[in-house]
Amino acid sequence: MKTQLYSFWRSSAAFRVRIALNLKGVDHQIIPVHLLKNGGEQTSAHYANKNPNRLVPLLIEGDHAIHQSLAIIEYLEETYPNPPLLPKTAIDRAWVRALAMDIAIDVHPIGNLRVLRYLMKNLGVSAENKDAWSQHWIMLGLESLENQLGNDTRVGRFAYGDQPGLIDICLVPQIFNALSAKMDTAAYPTLMRIFDECMTLPAFINASWEKQIDAEGLNPSIPPKE
Amino acid sequence: MKTQLYSFWRSSAAFRVRIALNLKGVDHQIIPVHLLKNGGEQTSAHYANKNPNRLVPLLIEGDHAIHQSLAIIEYLEETYPNPPLLPKTAIDRAWVRALAMDIAIDVHPIGNLRVLRYLMKNLGVSAENKDAWSQHWIMLGLESLENQLGNDTRVGRFAYGDQPGLIDICLVPQIFNALSAKMDTAAYPTLMRIFDECMTLPAFINASWEKQIDAEGLNPSIPPKE
Repeated sequence: MKTQLYSFWRSSAAFRVRIALNLKGVDHQIIPVHLLKNGGEQTSAHYANKNPNRLVPLLIEGDHAIHQSLAIIEYLEETYPNPPLLPKTAIDRAWVRALAMDIAIDVHPIGNLRVLRYLMKNLGVSAENKDAWSQHWIMLGLESLENQLGNDTRVGRFAYGDQPGLIDICLVPQIFNALSAKMDTAAYPTLMRIFDECMTLPAFINASWEKQIDAEGLNPSIPPKE
Repeated sequence: MKTQLYSFWRSSAAFRVRIALNLKGVDHQIIPVHLLKNGGEQTSAHYANKNPNRLVPLLIEGDHAIHQSLAIIEYLEETYPNPPLLPKTAIDRAWVRALAMDIAIDVHPIGNLRVLRYLMKNLGVSAENKDAWSQHWIMLGLESLENQLGNDTRVGRFAYGDQPGLIDICLVPQIFNALSAKMDTAAYPTLMRIFDECMTLPAFINASWEKQIDAEGLNPSIPPKE
């Protein structure tokens, strides 16, 4: 059976795994899970039976079901070692994982769909304040990342050297969110340069919003067609 | 120079690394960073210079500074392989990482101090609703974890087999938070059994709230002294 990825076009976590699968050249099938329709398909008993944490992504390989984007990517790194997404030395691997987690742990979960829903439905937060909330955490995260990448000699064409890796994989979906929210990215020149580099590669382009079979909108980095 | 850990007694992320250092037997010095005093010492220029994401923990080993608790623990696993905190096979490692991340990514960041502060200060959320918020995400996370661990043959004395590992390391600090918030844990019998097992081990006991040099309160699992 072909590798399957349960995915939603706009999910940053699913986007990360799509990029990793593409970079590793793993032939796979995308199975869309609509996070908004039908009360959220990820909360259905059918899906929860496969993934009890009721979130995307979920990778199926043979008998194995793996959730959590970073756990999936570490698994892909171990089972499809080439091209590598992590550096060779323990200290550089730690640095790359930490920066990836600055996004995946300290930014993304706080602006996740279910969190924004709780803000609006349970706490009566306005749409405007909900957007300010998302942007506040994105801004803090991107600021910290810009500080860390702006002056580090390990940065090359991509976040770590001249090959795309785990930081780029986490950065690009987060920049999609920032662009989609029309945030000003002028304060993040290093991040935007890396983003632009990534978006020249088919692995990133083909994983992006617009290219998904369940896409309902355009990539924010691509001007809408006339 | 001895390994140093910048830590705050109640920080779940720092707690995880304290447990890992103890399990691995890494001789280390704790340097307290008070997250509440002086407007939050983690936001000071002095600390941000060491750790631009302005959070604890931060591990210093020789010339290396590593942040993000899970990145630190992966680094410790690579540099101090015994006893191992991750399983031997890629698929079991993926499972353990995913469950650890169910806590470290999908629960903990949403109830973090800076997030609760934003809720109260920027969104005017009441103390009561702020507590309900924290408990909502903890409950969702523990429920999912109980479902995943309750019927898995990989579970032994601890979450994976009979030796403590990464899931236990993430679970115990989260249970501390739940107990401290006086949440009812009856719905999580597997988690509480594992928690109790962990709390018989010096590595966990010595990493816990009460045992920290900067502690200001008791472990919630220990009845207050008369």
